[in-house]
Amino acid sequence: MTRREAFCRHWIVVWGPAQDVASDRVMATVLDAEKPDFVVYLGDLVTANNVPIPNATLYWDMAISHSRRRGIPWSTVFGNHDDMPFEWPPEWFSTAGIPPVHCPPAASMPTSECSFRGTPRIDLMTAEMNRDGADGLSRSSVGPQELWPGISNYVLRVLSHEKQPDPALLMYFLDSGGGSYPEVISSAQVRWFCYQSQSLNPDGRIPEIIFWHIPSTAYVKVAPKAKTEITKPCVGSLNEEDVAPQVAEWGMMDALAKRSSVKAIFVGHNHGLDWCCPYEKLWLCFARHTGHGGYGDWPRGARIVEIAEKPFSVRSWIRMENGSTHSHITLS
Amino acid sequence: MTRREAFCRHWIVVWGPAQDVASDRVMATVLDAEKPDFVVYLGDLVTANNVPIPNATLYWDMAISHSRRRGIPWSTVFGNHDDMPFEWPPEWFSTAGIPPVHCPPAASMPTSECSFRGTPRIDLMTAEMNRDGADGLSRSSVGPQELWPGISNYVLRVLSHEKQPDPALLMYFLDSGGGSYPEVISSAQVRWFCYQSQSLNPDGRIPEIIFWHIPSTAYVKVAPKAKTEITKPCVGSLNEEDVAPQVAEWGMMDALAKRSSVKAIFVGHNHGLDWCCPYEKLWLCFARHTGHGGYGDWPRGARIVEIAEKPFSVRSWIRMENGSTHSHITLS
Repeated sequence: MTRREAFCRHWIVVWGPAQDVASDRVMATVLDAEKPDFVVYLGDLVTANNVPIPNATLYWDMAISHSRRRGIPWSTVFGNHDDMPFEWPPEWFSTAGIPPVHCPPAASMPTSECSFRGTPRIDLMTAEMNRDGADGLSRSSVGPQELWPGISNYVLRVLSHEKQPDPALLMYFLDSGGGSYPEVISSAQVRWFCYQSQSLNPDGRIPEIIFWHIPSTAYVKVAPKAKTEITKPCVGSLNEEDVAPQVAEWGMMDALAKRSSVKAIFVGHNHGLDWCCPYEKLWLCFARHTGHGGYGDWPRGARIVEIAEKPFSVRSWIRMENGSTHSHITLS
Repeated sequence: MTRREAFCRHWIVVWGPAQDVASDRVMATVLDAEKPDFVVYLGDLVTANNVPIPNATLYWDMAISHSRRRGIPWSTVFGNHDDMPFEWPPEWFSTAGIPPVHCPPAASMPTSECSFRGTPRIDLMTAEMNRDGADGLSRSSVGPQELWPGISNYVLRVLSHEKQPDPALLMYFLDSGGGSYPEVISSAQVRWFCYQSQSLNPDGRIPEIIFWHIPSTAYVKVAPKAKTEITKPCVGSLNEEDVAPQVAEWGMMDALAKRSSVKAIFVGHNHGLDWCCPYEKLWLCFARHTGHGGYGDWPRGARIVEIAEKPFSVRSWIRMENGSTHSHITLS
């Protein structure tokens, strides 16, 4: 989410490479401690509004490089900062003058290549897939064109150890918007989900889990009051702000809630929340703020999800940078 | 200026081609009534946040076509709407589905060509100059690269009838930002103005007038209280809102106020203001909202400026669409 007021005053000093180093440290620490089989990057990998170059794919690539280096497959979804346009600080126009910006040096005049309007989602995802798709470790996808402007809409089938080739789990990834377009999950995405889930899992035998970046309005309904203790049935450690939900709800939650195969939704967005709460028959969970971009100085960590096939279970906890774990919960 | 709240609810219905027809009628009526020697388009020619196509140069061209058709030379400056990104209405994601958008038909997947991030200033201006620059009627210019991201920074010399090749008048055009970057005139633009005015008019013998889109904070200082009568020394007919000024003042007004050769500044931006007020030794004037884009339903018109060489005078009035004139004033 955006903290614009604080942002405009402080980010040149506070945000930048030093944060990337700190983010790297968190990711390396968590990955080495947990040695996961798979990583989900849950959006806002890039603070594009802070990137004064015409092409941010390199930064996107840096963010996912920890998984690549360890040979761990991964998938990505978009958050609201990934394709935001660069936000010119008004101070850049003051007496210090506008700092040199990284335009193509050959250009005799400013060109649209140099417009800093954020690298489009499709370019970020295409770059990831060109480098790491197909035979690489990325399991991301650009999703069907009819869901455009949302891009990160796709399903991954986790195959069974017991009874291949049946999947043991379906992981749905959705683009919850933000940045270059409103923070919503569209009706077209709902129709796509219904079609996919009916095709892949018509009798609901396969458990399903869901990932997107911005909490739906249902999160607001189940949220413990901000800055109060998190009590049962919710489980978590961080409850420092109000849920910042999508701008509208156009049927995704109804579609999910009526499928008993759907066990949990995982979102990011709110840096100051890390709880899971029940909503009808599924769980609504926040991940844990992992990187050092954006607002908030709560200790960094990551949500871990452990799936067991037989008997089926989804267990989850938060792994902190300092090595501790907390907020253990069973989501099935 | 932006009226975002009203905008998001109503613009699909209210804004669009019908407004363009109405704008055309105003421009044709005023041009045919006044038969001016020159037209200044003072920004917000295009409501780019309302343009769901990747290239808005055609709309820009439509806006200036009235001058071309009449053989009248013109110049343009940028407002805060001209290169704004398209603003996706949240309603487009509801059950009606996302309407088809005008992507390149050959594209097998969405491309960055289809990102609707607004047509960059440089592309709008380059298209105008390619069509109408050099031997054409456009006197616009892209300005020096060191003033980037501001583009419409240039000077026009109006030659003397009496004593060529001395100019009788200097017209300075400045890009006051907005849209893709903050609403400011930068320190670099101030230095550029000082250098230009010193070079072209070292002894201040040549009168100078200034054009940009967004009022400087000095306008706030001299403004009659909104919705009160406009009284002397101010002259005007419309005082329906507060001045919406630039976000900061980094020296442009000081540079102008200390040159006695500078007679007046003309700005647009506020649709509900059309006054001129004195500020130190110069006049701060609003134009009159001419087009039908954006907020407000005050009757449309245009500010006319009449320059006489000997004795030098700058007279101005508002020409309304209904043929009437009012708010006559002498600015020298």
